[in-house]
Amino acid sequence: MKINFCAGPAVLPTSVIKELQQMLIDYKNTGVSLLSISHRDKVFDEVHASIQTNLRKLLNIPSDYSILLMQGGATAQFSAIPMNLAGKHNRALYLCTGIWSEKAAKEAEKFINVETTTQNNISLKEPCDYIYYTDNETVDGYQVKELAKSCDTPLVCDVSSSFLSKPVNISNYGLIYAGAQKNAGIPGVTIVIVKDSLIQKKNNIPIVFDYDLTKKSDSVYNTPSVISWVTFELILNYLLEKFDTLEKVAEFNQEKADLLYNAIDNSNIYVNNIDEKYRSNMNVIFQLKSEELTKKFLKEADERGFYGLKGHRNVGGCRASLYNAVSLADVQALVAFMKEFENAQL
Amino acid sequence: MKINFCAGPAVLPTSVIKELQQMLIDYKNTGVSLLSISHRDKVFDEVHASIQTNLRKLLNIPSDYSILLMQGGATAQFSAIPMNLAGKHNRALYLCTGIWSEKAAKEAEKFINVETTTQNNISLKEPCDYIYYTDNETVDGYQVKELAKSCDTPLVCDVSSSFLSKPVNISNYGLIYAGAQKNAGIPGVTIVIVKDSLIQKKNNIPIVFDYDLTKKSDSVYNTPSVISWVTFELILNYLLEKFDTLEKVAEFNQEKADLLYNAIDNSNIYVNNIDEKYRSNMNVIFQLKSEELTKKFLKEADERGFYGLKGHRNVGGCRASLYNAVSLADVQALVAFMKEFENAQL
Repeated sequence: MKINFCAGPAVLPTSVIKELQQMLIDYKNTGVSLLSISHRDKVFDEVHASIQTNLRKLLNIPSDYSILLMQGGATAQFSAIPMNLAGKHNRALYLCTGIWSEKAAKEAEKFINVETTTQNNISLKEPCDYIYYTDNETVDGYQVKELAKSCDTPLVCDVSSSFLSKPVNISNYGLIYAGAQKNAGIPGVTIVIVKDSLIQKKNNIPIVFDYDLTKKSDSVYNTPSVISWVTFELILNYLLEKFDTLEKVAEFNQEKADLLYNAIDNSNIYVNNIDEKYRSNMNVIFQLKSEELTKKFLKEADERGFYGLKGHRNVGGCRASLYNAVSLADVQALVAFMKEFENAQL
Repeated sequence: MKINFCAGPAVLPTSVIKELQQMLIDYKNTGVSLLSISHRDKVFDEVHASIQTNLRKLLNIPSDYSILLMQGGATAQFSAIPMNLAGKHNRALYLCTGIWSEKAAKEAEKFINVETTTQNNISLKEPCDYIYYTDNETVDGYQVKELAKSCDTPLVCDVSSSFLSKPVNISNYGLIYAGAQKNAGIPGVTIVIVKDSLIQKKNNIPIVFDYDLTKKSDSVYNTPSVISWVTFELILNYLLEKFDTLEKVAEFNQEKADLLYNAIDNSNIYVNNIDEKYRSNMNVIFQLKSEELTKKFLKEADERGFYGLKGHRNVGGCRASLYNAVSLADVQALVAFMKEFENAQL
């Protein structure tokens, strides 16, 4: 099997895949395949209950926040957030730090007045309904590690590619959300954690974007992707069993990231130009000196069994995503290969 | 294993489940699990190409129609259709024949002026941008088998629960769409077949609803549910191999429906009150004379290994869905059990 550094859909723990494989034939002795289990079946209610309990435990979610499970990926939330959170100011501030926050800001302009900034020391020129940022820019390898704001405007955060990789103080946020296909399983479910006081009943929001309706219908107004929910459930179980807390998950991820950034910084052919304090622990990007050399590197990496190292098509170069299911041994193998490749170029 | 008559997510062919089970470990010798394959990988382009080719073949789709693969289920299309198809009239006619068409009409009112009718001999009082109906009402067991209209207003049809169960003359439609979790696999992908001339570039549609953008980005603007696409691909292969044409699929489904409706009509305890010419071939509903007897029937059916026979929570009673993957032997077993249960009540 290949060693998978893909940015998403991402590698899953082998134990989770094996459980799913079993469930495909007979889901928990129901006599029905996981793929055919009804979302109205009691066994599916148990999946939902388990997700709610274990996610609350891992992230220490306060009781005045709801967990909504939605469809359409982070991109659907780019629209849903302004639609749901637009209030008396009809205005939002977007911190633009890379491709994903820029996409979110551009989409929001369809539904609300948008101001943008690139300064993570936030001050508002005009009152806003919310302040939006992207915790980890998956494409750019940039992570907003600190954000200063002096107002009490609710903070909204796209945590797609750092979700469950570290603790989060939920009370600092009005809303955080994540697509599942990084650290929470496979595409098909988007996790929205939102303060109840921000959920408004509105009349003209499309059903699939409607937070109020989603909450009232326990996230099953319409048919969800059953296997995406079950995979998320299994991932939560796995994290609790293997790491117990997100503090320990974060330590593990820091160790992997340090190893790879050190290898890059100590090399003569790999470069990462991001200010150290903003370097992403989840998506490590690096460039080689020419496009030709990048191609050669990627080709040989592929032949040596590494998958998903090509940078995003918008930025080129290379990218190694170090999500929770990537092991230390995987990163050690990559670092060893990078050194070997470098030596071969001398 | 249970015999599955669930309305959706529905039973899949065993051969498809076995293929998926294999792919979960190693997808087509890539060395990567199906669950971790990137939607930007060449092997995923092949999945999309195969879906396009085989769906065009099965449904004989004219070249001036596009196949879009979207997210959010049929419910997302309830919003997307009026948003995309609203034109100079800013008005649509909805034929309301049951729960799903009523939900669609109610949702459309958020975005366009909606007129409703219950007559499937359509005449327009005012010019409309489109006429909408639901081919098969999954909850009500009602199928619109003929529709007469004298105008050239584009026809839009929700074919979710009859998709791939019979041939469709695509040229009669401006747009048809279906959630996958009946005859086309599992939740997570919605198939939209739309005449190119109806796709308009609009500025204020949410990204995930935008037909123009979906077409231009080959349905992968954002991360799709990879396993839902692959399951759909496998289902198309299965239909071509096992039946070759949708005419043959329709014959097979008719045989199963006739068997079950005959059993109901010839019984003294089961009733289906729908006019014969509107009876659904896909979702056969039936009532027993009391709620108590219904409960007893469902309990014994469950004990005997039948799954998913409970009617939709909005209408009660019983429902047996006879999708493509339900075998004739499955229906024979159900009919035998129904007779046995009836005799035991004497």
